[in-house]
Amino acid sequence: MRAALAAAALLLLLLLMRRRRRRRREVLFFPAAPRCPEALLSGSAGPCPCPLPPGDSGLLRLLRLLLGARRSLDVCVFAFSSPELGRALQLLHRQGVRVRVLTDSQYMGLPGSQVGLLRRHGIQVRHDQDSGFMHHKFAVVDKQLLITGSLNWTTQAIQNNRENVLVTEDTEFVKPFLDEFERIWEEFNPINYSFFSKDNK
Amino acid sequence: MRAALAAAALLLLLLLMRRRRRRRREVLFFPAAPRCPEALLSGSAGPCPCPLPPGDSGLLRLLRLLLGARRSLDVCVFAFSSPELGRALQLLHRQGVRVRVLTDSQYMGLPGSQVGLLRRHGIQVRHDQDSGFMHHKFAVVDKQLLITGSLNWTTQAIQNNRENVLVTEDTEFVKPFLDEFERIWEEFNPINYSFFSKDNK
Repeated sequence: MRAALAAAALLLLLLLMRRRRRRRREVLFFPAAPRCPEALLSGSAGPCPCPLPPGDSGLLRLLRLLLGARRSLDVCVFAFSSPELGRALQLLHRQGVRVRVLTDSQYMGLPGSQVGLLRRHGIQVRHDQDSGFMHHKFAVVDKQLLITGSLNWTTQAIQNNRENVLVTEDTEFVKPFLDEFERIWEEFNPINYSFFSKDNK
Repeated sequence: MRAALAAAALLLLLLLMRRRRRRRREVLFFPAAPRCPEALLSGSAGPCPCPLPPGDSGLLRLLRLLLGARRSLDVCVFAFSSPELGRALQLLHRQGVRVRVLTDSQYMGLPGSQVGLLRRHGIQVRHDQDSGFMHHKFAVVDKQLLITGSLNWTTQAIQNNRENVLVTEDTEFVKPFLDEFERIWEEFNPINYSFFSKDNK
């Protein structure tokens, strides 16, 4: 009986520790030195074809986390002009991952924006239609890994700004962001657009 | 012996559960309906003197979290023009809380910025001197509560934008942000400014 009790207590402790250990928590800071992303984006095992040095950095870590998606990637970012992050989304889309993008209408048409390119490759994009900014900068991988912070998905932000990205699997954080994504995704459904009716009032 | 073992297991379980329960985790979303902040900012127990409705909302929750500071408040925000958040910092400063502010040099001189006002009230402010943005939007209360997200401390962001603020006491998140604050605080020390030497080159 005593042995059984001790074993139960040990098992409980191990289970709790395992649960705590399994939840990913990480913080990335920018600016980050540019590194060669080709090995990640091209799937090539050969030497890096670009002149930048290899090795991990903020952008490469972010790419790794995004490219870990197996079923879905929900992206909700104010400004999206990073070609590397755009290529990562195209790669996932080609692999059959369901990629969805929410963005801001006033920024998506600016020079260098990736939004048109993503749409041309068949990725679903929705945007706001009001004057306030859709200013979120988060993504959720496979409905369980939240990536959120101050970082817009632009080369300027990655290479020049002081920025942070927080990565977490804690459900207390992941669930509200998932709910916010679905709420905005429905609200920005093109059938709700009222550009024309507003103009005609 | 068996009773002691059971008691130890129970104690361990309670300790672990308590440790888990004590860590605050919360997400705020914006835009949030304007609510009367006077009761919080004036310390008055009487009826709210402003015409806005009372009750909690995103800004009031944020104010409550900040006003909970007892020893220190470290603020690191790109744009700071919210009068209510500015008043909260002044209130804390008057109460003897050590308030420090890091901000972006290109945004702190814009109309409506709170930075000059904070300085006039004796609050320490430091800023970058490079072309990249100091784009963080976080604060740490008493070195243990991290408040971070997409929200700049502006009325536009609070009332009109889609924004998020994540609140956490998890040390895996708090410590890197505290370290980042101290790193930038030292880097932005005015003795390091090189505006003039740059001009003279």
